[in-house]
Amino acid sequence: MTQSRSDFEARLRQIGAERYHDLHPFHDLLHGGGCTPDQVRAWVLNRYYYQHTIPMKDAAFMSRVESPELRRAWRSRIEDHDGTSENEGGIRRWLRLAEAVGLDPDYVASRRGVLPATKFACDAYVRFVRDKTLLEAVASSLTELFAPKIHANRIEGLLRNYDFADDSSLSYFRNRLKEAPKDVAFGLAWVLDHADTQEKQDAAADALIFKTDVLWSQLDALWGAYVEPGRIPPGGWVPGTGLLLQRAS
Amino acid sequence: MTQSRSDFEARLRQIGAERYHDLHPFHDLLHGGGCTPDQVRAWVLNRYYYQHTIPMKDAAFMSRVESPELRRAWRSRIEDHDGTSENEGGIRRWLRLAEAVGLDPDYVASRRGVLPATKFACDAYVRFVRDKTLLEAVASSLTELFAPKIHANRIEGLLRNYDFADDSSLSYFRNRLKEAPKDVAFGLAWVLDHADTQEKQDAAADALIFKTDVLWSQLDALWGAYVEPGRIPPGGWVPGTGLLLQRAS
Repeated sequence: MTQSRSDFEARLRQIGAERYHDLHPFHDLLHGGGCTPDQVRAWVLNRYYYQHTIPMKDAAFMSRVESPELRRAWRSRIEDHDGTSENEGGIRRWLRLAEAVGLDPDYVASRRGVLPATKFACDAYVRFVRDKTLLEAVASSLTELFAPKIHANRIEGLLRNYDFADDSSLSYFRNRLKEAPKDVAFGLAWVLDHADTQEKQDAAADALIFKTDVLWSQLDALWGAYVEPGRIPPGGWVPGTGLLLQRAS
Repeated sequence: MTQSRSDFEARLRQIGAERYHDLHPFHDLLHGGGCTPDQVRAWVLNRYYYQHTIPMKDAAFMSRVESPELRRAWRSRIEDHDGTSENEGGIRRWLRLAEAVGLDPDYVASRRGVLPATKFACDAYVRFVRDKTLLEAVASSLTELFAPKIHANRIEGLLRNYDFADDSSLSYFRNRLKEAPKDVAFGLAWVLDHADTQEKQDAAADALIFKTDVLWSQLDALWGAYVEPGRIPPGGWVPGTGLLLQRAS
């Protein structure tokens, strides 16, 4: 049976309450100050791959949208990540964080050493948005509904627990707190407007579940490689490499 | 510099020696009898997803091949997995293994409970074969060069260590020992014939590395979910569900 607008929104929010990656123990470790410098680096390096795919994902979406209005509304997402003449953009901000934790930003931007499982998950997101219905593509972006809380916790936890954390290195997260709300308000309203049958509501909910899997599996891979058992798969970043100091020497 | 045929073949074999998933500790655990029944089930369930994608991967390849000769040479791979009037095929044999370890084959075939990381890796393989050059697609199949050893070890280890193992439940692996050599001889010769520049040799080697990542990351995901730390991600199979007995009751 087709759910009412408010019931369907509650269903989407419940998916976040049960499956969003703020529930993954890696975030407690990170925000609580329990990460070693190398574990922080591994997170920054792998999460860069996700940042790198997001504007490609948004371009894949826009390449399928025939409405100039919808493309115009979506375009700011790419600007937020790639930058404009006034705004350095999220990807450069992320590389500033990489530098702050001691990584060579050129090494990070090369995407060498990224865990294969991180690549498979992020690439699956780009393909999902390219292959599925527009409704599913928009719905898969709605994990941003749950992001402000994790970003606020992260800023607070990193500032309290790590020397590298300051306004400059954490500017990515502060900017996302400003940018994400307008995107997610638009995306949520669009999904609620367009998911007007049970079949479409089920598809949109499944798309959001898919996206929570994309995020969760990145942290599982990080945990396995760098926390427990700490077995780095072939090709994965090896602590001690890709550092800023090595570049200077 | 373009390598000689024999040097290039040695380079491909070296990739297997360094990165093939027979080096992953999950296989020692499995073949040595150290897996609990639920760990064996988790392996069978997740590996089914890989089996399920292989003929789709081969069809994606054939959909791009313009030569009837090459398609004809490739077609037996789909027959080996999906079956013919005389041969039940590898997928049904795998479901017989599932039944032997106590899983409901209908549950396994539904692919519910498969780890998201397994899906991302296997789906990445299908997409790779769909998107890359034919040379890279064929090169990515060459992990079969390294498979006979692991299949022989597996048959021997499973028979010795687990009650479920017998000729019927292990028929998948025995058949692969017969089928794989003709496929891999064809694929290897094709790659050696067509990788006639350094650029193509590098691309073929990278394709084989990609495929070793697809296999390795599946075992990493299995390890994280069911061995250590044994944290099952949201949506992953929960031991005690999907069993044959539950179906009968």
